[in-house]
Amino acid sequence: MKFKIDVELKYRVATDSTLILNIHALKTAHQKVLSESFKTSLDIKIEELNSVQGEHRFVRLEIPKTNHIGISYQATVDNSFTIKDYTMVPELKIAKLSPEILTYLYPSRYCQSDKLYNMANNLFGHIENDFNKVIAISEWIYKNVKYLGGASNSQTSALDTLVEQAGVCRDFAHLGIAFCRALTIPARYFTGYAYQLNPQDFHACFEAYINGDWVLFDATKLAPLNGMVKIATGRDAADTAFGNLFGDINFTFCKISCDTEEENFEPFHQQEQGHQGISYA
Amino acid sequence: MKFKIDVELKYRVATDSTLILNIHALKTAHQKVLSESFKTSLDIKIEELNSVQGEHRFVRLEIPKTNHIGISYQATVDNSFTIKDYTMVPELKIAKLSPEILTYLYPSRYCQSDKLYNMANNLFGHIENDFNKVIAISEWIYKNVKYLGGASNSQTSALDTLVEQAGVCRDFAHLGIAFCRALTIPARYFTGYAYQLNPQDFHACFEAYINGDWVLFDATKLAPLNGMVKIATGRDAADTAFGNLFGDINFTFCKISCDTEEENFEPFHQQEQGHQGISYA
Amino acid sequence: MKFKIDVELKYRVATDSTLILNIHALKTAHQKVLSESFKTSLDIKIEELNSVQGEHRFVRLEIPKTNHIGISYQATVDNSFTIKDYTMVPELKIAKLSPEILTYLYPSRYCQSDKLYNMANNLFGHIENDFNKVIAISEWIYKNVKYLGGASNSQTSALDTLVEQAGVCRDFAHLGIAFCRALTIPARYFTGYAYQLNPQDFHACFEAYINGDWVLFDATKLAPLNGMVKIATGRDAADTAFGNLFGDINFTFCKISCDTEEENFEPFHQQEQGHQGISYA
Amino acid sequence: MKFKIDVELKYRVATDSTLILNIHALKTAHQKVLSESFKTSLDIKIEELNSVQGEHRFVRLEIPKTNHIGISYQATVDNSFTIKDYTMVPELKIAKLSPEILTYLYPSRYCQSDKLYNMANNLFGHIENDFNKVIAISEWIYKNVKYLGGASNSQTSALDTLVEQAGVCRDFAHLGIAFCRALTIPARYFTGYAYQLNPQDFHACFEAYINGDWVLFDATKLAPLNGMVKIATGRDAADTAFGNLFGDINFTFCKISCDTEEENFEPFHQQEQGHQGISYA
Repeated sequence: MKFKIDVELKYRVATDSTLILNIHALKTAHQKVLSESFKTSLDIKIEELNSVQGEHRFVRLEIPKTNHIGISYQATVDNSFTIKDYTMVPELKIAKLSPEILTYLYPSRYCQSDKLYNMANNLFGHIENDFNKVIAISEWIYKNVKYLGGASNSQTSALDTLVEQAGVCRDFAHLGIAFCRALTIPARYFTGYAYQLNPQDFHACFEAYINGDWVLFDATKLAPLNGMVKIATGRDAADTAFGNLFGDINFTFCKISCDTEEENFEPFHQQEQGHQGISYA
Repeated sequence: MKFKIDVELKYRVATDSTLILNIHALKTAHQKVLSESFKTSLDIKIEELNSVQGEHRFVRLEIPKTNHIGISYQATVDNSFTIKDYTMVPELKIAKLSPEILTYLYPSRYCQSDKLYNMANNLFGHIENDFNKVIAISEWIYKNVKYLGGASNSQTSALDTLVEQAGVCRDFAHLGIAFCRALTIPARYFTGYAYQLNPQDFHACFEAYINGDWVLFDATKLAPLNGMVKIATGRDAADTAFGNLFGDINFTFCKISCDTEEENFEPFHQQEQGHQGISYA
Repeated sequence: MKFKIDVELKYRVATDSTLILNIHALKTAHQKVLSESFKTSLDIKIEELNSVQGEHRFVRLEIPKTNHIGISYQATVDNSFTIKDYTMVPELKIAKLSPEILTYLYPSRYCQSDKLYNMANNLFGHIENDFNKVIAISEWIYKNVKYLGGASNSQTSALDTLVEQAGVCRDFAHLGIAFCRALTIPARYFTGYAYQLNPQDFHACFEAYINGDWVLFDATKLAPLNGMVKIATGRDAADTAFGNLFGDINFTFCKISCDTEEENFEPFHQQEQGHQGISYA
Repeated sequence: MKFKIDVELKYRVATDSTLILNIHALKTAHQKVLSESFKTSLDIKIEELNSVQGEHRFVRLEIPKTNHIGISYQATVDNSFTIKDYTMVPELKIAKLSPEILTYLYPSRYCQSDKLYNMANNLFGHIENDFNKVIAISEWIYKNVKYLGGASNSQTSALDTLVEQAGVCRDFAHLGIAFCRALTIPARYFTGYAYQLNPQDFHACFEAYINGDWVLFDATKLAPLNGMVKIATGRDAADTAFGNLFGDINFTFCKISCDTEEENFEPFHQQEQGHQGISYA
């Protein structure tokens, strides 16, 4: 399905600074970037970088001391997904996982799964089938954690969210990931643009590795799962911040849109009792 | 009911030290100390202190540098309790609480109730009647937290226990208190000797202030609620440690017994669906 | 010295609520309240309470659901302090402390001294004389922690402040207290009005128990130590919040002034190398 | 220089389990494995895996329910290092770092650098030259953190170590890494075998990225820096645990030796005022 992305960002730059942006739509076998444009209000070098394993596309900017810099990004993206029935998922075999996947079993900055073995097993350990476990995790978060702008900050971790039970999409995703890993289900952070997200913003969800697929879950339920344009995946938000700022530089403005021209978009939402999971490549 | 308490403690004392012990059975209107004896293996001054509000009896010992000190405490105690039906508890009125009770609404070192408003309300807020709320808290802890010696230490707090879901009696009590206070139910820490506790040790429970009574709850379910001899109450274990050690002094040994000569002791345990609560004074 | 206090507070009250205010100037042997007036914009009962040990004066208000309530407090206070040379302070004897003082050795919600033994001893353990230790603590905090409005919230504890090194007066006081207790120096939280504080607000400092006196320290250095009108002391901010709110009630406005008519006020500030300490009874 | 490694491990295996070991000497341009042998006491498949970026060599074992399994690993390794003068290090340019290096600027599970900006800058920000900064970090840790077996566990993070100031090699390394990253110096965790470590065990240090080299630092000062055989590098211990256990399997025994036949080994230790740094490619 085709999506049009339109992003406008502004920063105040008080000293010479480096800005690493992670806002480009990822290019994968299942997500084609048909056209894109990245511009800045200053005439500076734009350096595009790719991560080693292909989970990100960075842009690095060296910005001189200035008042403000404006950044705009437009893209037209054509992506595809698969919806499958995961009713009969065989048990995950650690012994079959490749090293790249094993990484997503280990705790990370914002997903301290090593502290959650008992709780994850108490809450979800009795559920058969990894897919059903992750559905239950996602529902538990949806029901227990209040979506509340300003309830968290860039240092908030899954443990904080678990205890305080309030947060934003980033926090919902971190807690989902932490529970999955505590149950020995590989899980990773997903950032992207989300069609019908209201208000529009960068969005975050999580993917769990089930029967060889990275299945997407969104415990916020704020947007249809089939309207996502992937920016990056990583261990958590530490890997995938949309902007990493070095110097005295501050984020001041953001305007995002993610639209489609398709006429008959049928939103796919994860059902509490559902067996259908969605994966983007 | 009459209980016989017998305690033997040993400490290794490498420098001149001060030891404050909080192991004497409390004297209250409902708990009479019929006889008691406190002895140390060294010929040193034994200074008895009482806390201002009568929640503790301290003994303070100045111990010279020595190899070891042995301490023994025996007491015969006659106490009484009340069992009531709390089915029809009127709502707590903050406006009626005296300042001494208000204290037990505020967070303390090991009971960070200020962090648990959302969780406590998600889990228990829908339950009518404060007594039923505390029963539900106690059952939740019993079902979710694993009793596991060595899972915690003297720095472990209610938040740790909530996340890691393992601990000992102290941790169960702290979590119970934190949940109560987060629901605006005054709650305090209770230390004592517990008949039929196996293995014998100092025990910790918690009391919630319901309809004018301090009702006792034990989320460990390790001992009958009507076999408790109260040592102290306080905001949490910071107030009521059985030993506070100043100097290079280490706890090395403990042997405790708490017996009764009553022939027909009928254990009272809190029931999951029960309406009967027990209070000591 | 005579001070005039003038406080105006406003709250938005969305449901029937209880408000416990702790803003009255304390009455002690060394602080006389010459006159005072407490008024609310609604015609409701005003109930004054005193804490058991005389460290607070509460006012409790039952406020019906309404749009707003305004509260005003004026007082004229005459207080006195003592400035002494603490050069030759004998070592603190735990064995001589009364139970009320011992309380201030134990960790509390926002002052987790039990975690700071090593750090406190590394930083300050080599300093002889308790007074000099506390001066060093106060200077360390002043130099290392940035005073920054908005850097902390009501859940921020001494450990957070230690790690993140930013906060407001409350945080500076908590960290000072935690370090003192970790060095076995009793310490408590002090809230009050502070002459020449800019901008005016409720202020918080800490007192350390040195040679029988509660000596006042202010690691923020934002106001002269001899211009304080005491509201309350307690274990930490959990005991002494200026407002405890029960119900859907929100603090919306605050205006404070603390002035003197004395003509020749000579500000007393703690000196880094000083031996003079100040105590208010 | 040539080292002989000899490792013996034992595990108790109560259910069918998967064990991922990360104990093989890494193969790099500067570290040749001349010979090695890996054996288990059971006749099971041994699967060797390599991480994508070459920072690890894993061995994965599927172990049936059994009483015990013994594992032995021997290797002869020839490695080389470079010692350079870092007096005149140009400032790090974020704009020049490749994406693989940028990763080591971000916070990770045990190295929450995002919380330490103020502290790192207060302590080390004034020091010119990245190398001198890291020397100062290493010395600060050495002087302030007590090496104490049992002071930490697998969940202990840099923040815990910072506050509690006690730990083992793992904790020293995590804190060093967190401080470096908070100063925008890329840093990573290094595990290896260490000649002259006493008692012998797996060792952990950290590497900071200075002027294009990964320079090795060991805040424990327990072993010479030129006697290290690298096993793995990673973001922190979450990436590089010597054993990851899945199933009811427990580590019960470990015996390690790391020797050399070189006759004139001259130990190289980091000097507090030194300008010489060591790097293993």
